[in-house]
Amino acid sequence: MIRAGIIGATGYTGVELLRLLLAHPKVELAVITSRGNAGEPLESLFPNLRGQGTLVFQAPDVAVLADCDVVFFATPHGVAHAMAGELLARGTRVIDLSADFRLQDPVLWGRWYGQPHGAPDLLPEAVYGLPELNREPIAQARLIAVPGCYPTAITLGFLPLVEQGLVDLHRLVADAKSGVSGAGRKAQMGSLLCEASENFKAYGVPGHRHLPEILQTLSMVAGQSPGLTFVPHLLPMIRGILATLYATLNRSDVDLQDVYEQRYAQAPFVDVMPPGSHPETRGVRGTNVCRLAVHRPGDGDTVVVLAAIDNLVKGASGQAVQNMNLMLGFPETLGLDTIAVLP
Amino acid sequence: MIRAGIIGATGYTGVELLRLLLAHPKVELAVITSRGNAGEPLESLFPNLRGQGTLVFQAPDVAVLADCDVVFFATPHGVAHAMAGELLARGTRVIDLSADFRLQDPVLWGRWYGQPHGAPDLLPEAVYGLPELNREPIAQARLIAVPGCYPTAITLGFLPLVEQGLVDLHRLVADAKSGVSGAGRKAQMGSLLCEASENFKAYGVPGHRHLPEILQTLSMVAGQSPGLTFVPHLLPMIRGILATLYATLNRSDVDLQDVYEQRYAQAPFVDVMPPGSHPETRGVRGTNVCRLAVHRPGDGDTVVVLAAIDNLVKGASGQAVQNMNLMLGFPETLGLDTIAVLP
Amino acid sequence: MIRAGIIGATGYTGVELLRLLLAHPKVELAVITSRGNAGEPLESLFPNLRGQGTLVFQAPDVAVLADCDVVFFATPHGVAHAMAGELLARGTRVIDLSADFRLQDPVLWGRWYGQPHGAPDLLPEAVYGLPELNREPIAQARLIAVPGCYPTAITLGFLPLVEQGLVDLHRLVADAKSGVSGAGRKAQMGSLLCEASENFKAYGVPGHRHLPEILQTLSMVAGQSPGLTFVPHLLPMIRGILATLYATLNRSDVDLQDVYEQRYAQAPFVDVMPPGSHPETRGVRGTNVCRLAVHRPGDGDTVVVLAAIDNLVKGASGQAVQNMNLMLGFPETLGLDTIAVLP
Amino acid sequence: MIRAGIIGATGYTGVELLRLLLAHPKVELAVITSRGNAGEPLESLFPNLRGQGTLVFQAPDVAVLADCDVVFFATPHGVAHAMAGELLARGTRVIDLSADFRLQDPVLWGRWYGQPHGAPDLLPEAVYGLPELNREPIAQARLIAVPGCYPTAITLGFLPLVEQGLVDLHRLVADAKSGVSGAGRKAQMGSLLCEASENFKAYGVPGHRHLPEILQTLSMVAGQSPGLTFVPHLLPMIRGILATLYATLNRSDVDLQDVYEQRYAQAPFVDVMPPGSHPETRGVRGTNVCRLAVHRPGDGDTVVVLAAIDNLVKGASGQAVQNMNLMLGFPETLGLDTIAVLP
Repeated sequence: MIRAGIIGATGYTGVELLRLLLAHPKVELAVITSRGNAGEPLESLFPNLRGQGTLVFQAPDVAVLADCDVVFFATPHGVAHAMAGELLARGTRVIDLSADFRLQDPVLWGRWYGQPHGAPDLLPEAVYGLPELNREPIAQARLIAVPGCYPTAITLGFLPLVEQGLVDLHRLVADAKSGVSGAGRKAQMGSLLCEASENFKAYGVPGHRHLPEILQTLSMVAGQSPGLTFVPHLLPMIRGILATLYATLNRSDVDLQDVYEQRYAQAPFVDVMPPGSHPETRGVRGTNVCRLAVHRPGDGDTVVVLAAIDNLVKGASGQAVQNMNLMLGFPETLGLDTIAVLP
Repeated sequence: MIRAGIIGATGYTGVELLRLLLAHPKVELAVITSRGNAGEPLESLFPNLRGQGTLVFQAPDVAVLADCDVVFFATPHGVAHAMAGELLARGTRVIDLSADFRLQDPVLWGRWYGQPHGAPDLLPEAVYGLPELNREPIAQARLIAVPGCYPTAITLGFLPLVEQGLVDLHRLVADAKSGVSGAGRKAQMGSLLCEASENFKAYGVPGHRHLPEILQTLSMVAGQSPGLTFVPHLLPMIRGILATLYATLNRSDVDLQDVYEQRYAQAPFVDVMPPGSHPETRGVRGTNVCRLAVHRPGDGDTVVVLAAIDNLVKGASGQAVQNMNLMLGFPETLGLDTIAVLP
Repeated sequence: MIRAGIIGATGYTGVELLRLLLAHPKVELAVITSRGNAGEPLESLFPNLRGQGTLVFQAPDVAVLADCDVVFFATPHGVAHAMAGELLARGTRVIDLSADFRLQDPVLWGRWYGQPHGAPDLLPEAVYGLPELNREPIAQARLIAVPGCYPTAITLGFLPLVEQGLVDLHRLVADAKSGVSGAGRKAQMGSLLCEASENFKAYGVPGHRHLPEILQTLSMVAGQSPGLTFVPHLLPMIRGILATLYATLNRSDVDLQDVYEQRYAQAPFVDVMPPGSHPETRGVRGTNVCRLAVHRPGDGDTVVVLAAIDNLVKGASGQAVQNMNLMLGFPETLGLDTIAVLP
Repeated sequence: MIRAGIIGATGYTGVELLRLLLAHPKVELAVITSRGNAGEPLESLFPNLRGQGTLVFQAPDVAVLADCDVVFFATPHGVAHAMAGELLARGTRVIDLSADFRLQDPVLWGRWYGQPHGAPDLLPEAVYGLPELNREPIAQARLIAVPGCYPTAITLGFLPLVEQGLVDLHRLVADAKSGVSGAGRKAQMGSLLCEASENFKAYGVPGHRHLPEILQTLSMVAGQSPGLTFVPHLLPMIRGILATLYATLNRSDVDLQDVYEQRYAQAPFVDVMPPGSHPETRGVRGTNVCRLAVHRPGDGDTVVVLAAIDNLVKGASGQAVQNMNLMLGFPETLGLDTIAVLP
């Protein structure tokens, strides 16, 4: 059993980590921290955790956390900048679910997040935790930047096309839709049921923080800078992301279905569905699976890729656990094999 | 007061027509028909219509319907083919909310709807009832084909760009999302709350019946056949369509905001929102308004247009009443000026 | 045209008042106030109000408000205490949608609302604005306390039984369920879509502020103090209250259906449904109607009454306008006759 | 490993059984049947079951099913009547999730279900599968009648009060609310998202099939026939039942909290929450837990009990597996210990 800690265990990615780690056969959840709820027992915050043991939230203390083998940050941006270095220095692995180490360029980070990068010296060893792209580096890493939710779905969807140079890189479109939990567990007007239910809208069309993250990965893969239009939308539901991706093929003699199936043949959490499929977000709810379908409407030169994930699992906490499994030499799917509850 | 009849008044477009016509100051709703519910009073079917008078559903009878000045078809496809001719012959105007007269090419119609066109002789006088495009022909028409819900949002969104030749016609993308009421009031598995709630998916990616309708209008406007990728999605909510449209600009010296505002300056139901806006479906719920916003992310050459409508009002019954107003010389907005209920 | 003002027009009862008064044929909406949004145009806050004129929110100023014939308070409790007196002194009628003047006993008020009553001297002239009970006093009143949402549904449901002494007053049960908009437009955790959607719970079982208000009315009507168990619940939806009421009949020779129909024969907004009916909240959404059904399961001695209202209309803003109509001598239903949007 | 079969595995209780049995460590799911979907692979019906093996639906065949150690019926009523006897005769245990064997009186059954009872000879050995009441008989049983969803919540809520004679048996009230999945996976109008979403109503007030089932259990426990008013309601959500129970205490010197905690001390799936609690349906979603809270508002003589379950798990398929565990000597909680996904 390894010892794990969670910093900021009271948000939606936090409670999802709690659910996954409490059930993980190789993990002892040793420390959970929350400044605002220090002293409260685990079960007081979330009605689904009654009966799941006697853990008590405590204020974050590096000395206590450093006794863990691995510490997860499920915090607002900036917190991991301040604390990750000290934990790493004491030999504790760090898996950061926030955006703090996702962008390799600290200046770019500062521009999108509105504050100076707080730990640029750690960037060289931070590994972008998308296992389907970086399985080997993750296994060797001490510091993981877990990808954002939109970037996970969009990158997995575009990857086979971009890696093999099959599409015009200057005209990529990612029309993505997310459940409200993507906005976090914050008391903000726009996330009220009365505002977000029975409603639908796009947001952030002029620019969204996940755009540079997606571009960074696709640029690295393609060896050149792509042109991507990314439009996020807010779905009137709790969980799930569906990304609908559009690209122009630059050759017509490729079996796209085969390209996708081969690319992800070794990826236990990417399910390339049969031709003609339409993945549903509910089919992956609560699971770490990304379901993909690839279409070429009317046999034209536009390829449409559909990518469905649970934004809190494959888009956050499940992917974090998948990274942990790889870092610690556990089977990649350990503790992540539940079946989605449906309906 | 003019006399109006509704054929097939028991579906969702039917009950919406009932709501609008019962409150219309110039209309006496004289006949409502339903084969399945003949003999039942109006208020027995829909809990919102209690206290709205003593109308009784009757079986459709051309002789009775021909006493109306105008008859609306809110029926499955094929029904208007069979009955419209006789009504027109007796001098009754026909406004068809079904797909029966939307496509000018009867062969194309037959291919998409899986049966031969039943009234090709009427096609020459059928007018496509998009008032923002065909105001004058509508005012002279006897037979109106009310546009489909997706085509209304998508066409209004693309129209200024296509009319003025501002975009590459070969690479249009329409990513559209609709509430479940778009599927009609039919007891079908996919429309169950347990299937469609807390879920999101694309459907019909290989091809959807509204595609040829959109292409027909855009071709006519552009003078050439465009390339359009259209992907519809099912939203976990009752009402509303948001279409997110993508196109590549072929010139950069145009003030797009101005283009849209001028194009729709005389359109009382098209609201071009200020730069930077994100229209919401709830803001048009129950109203005949189409809200548009035009974006150019990063000042690049991709234009993103957002178009929000209520699929049952501007996408069906409200647009039908708007057509009726124009045909009968009433003010265009008569009976269509309610404020959306929000939240 | 009379001049009306709204204090606190940015909450959910405020925007509902805006919707109703902007469409009211006898009202000129002259002043809308909001401390937090002073200077902003009407349409900036709510997407459904675009195109509804050029009103601008201003900070509340009694001198300006006193130019109105009637002023509505859609404010947190305490605000009307502070301002109503001055408005009344200047001859302006006051319709208070908050709880400030609902309880005649200021000590009791202080106990339930956690602060001293701020205007006990005004209580003698405050009229409880339930038109179905107090039509005459309302017509003469200068100061109206609009009933709470739960009290409206529950009182209308129990009234015929209690007035005629048909039930055991010591064993009344009101099991009531409300949409989330009843909690107001406040950024609070429990009202988030992610907390309240796909979920159901009771709350406030030990005691809820609407209990003393209901008891006050029923006591007054019965001439004695009843025993009432009131349990509110939070529905995973935006609008609507259904109250399910239980009482034990103390006689069996009464035609309950007839009792209800006669009691409300002159009430234009109370719809006593036919025997065997089950009113739905969607059937009254956006309208000022209360739908009632009365059942006696198994012909036993328990009577079950179902009462459905829209909590923001008959339970707040619509009832406020109904009161205004009565106070100013307009037809009771003026501006309140829209048909619910369904589905 | 024991071999299990499911008859009628395509409804909502069926897919929930699939989810639970596929993950059960002691079960090999050997046969799944469906007349309508015979020949289709498991994963074709439900998007959450992709990758869960190669089972194929087959037409029901007693010879094949009799090779199982236990067979579950997740069928409409009447089917288990026809097939259970033969399976029992061949030594296969039967767990029936339908209503076929819930009522001991076949005449009463026929009256409520509208057809003659098809297997009255099997009734003497049918055990009502509520483990918290019948743990020992279940362990010995060959034929289990799994309780209905409403009866499970209501009976567990009333049981301690009725067993100990603490309340007036003539005035019990059960106001219960269920998600739409309680109506099953049937293409019926009332279960459409457009009909059931953003809406709330009572139904079946004159009488519901679960009433005689609840009365049978309470009568047996009390030794006399109680008077119960049961009103079910339809919640605008997928899963979950909350029952709000009202009873009049006939003594005031009892510590109700203690009564409940002691009654369920040995019941691993009944969670008696601390005083003042309000159980939420989402806290038990996807789990076999029943959460209870007991209140005595104002320290009066009315007791209010809140009982929350997932209607498809503790109210159906989870309870069925709990019965199987007891019948086969497995730990009661085996395969039933997942944490609810929240939010």
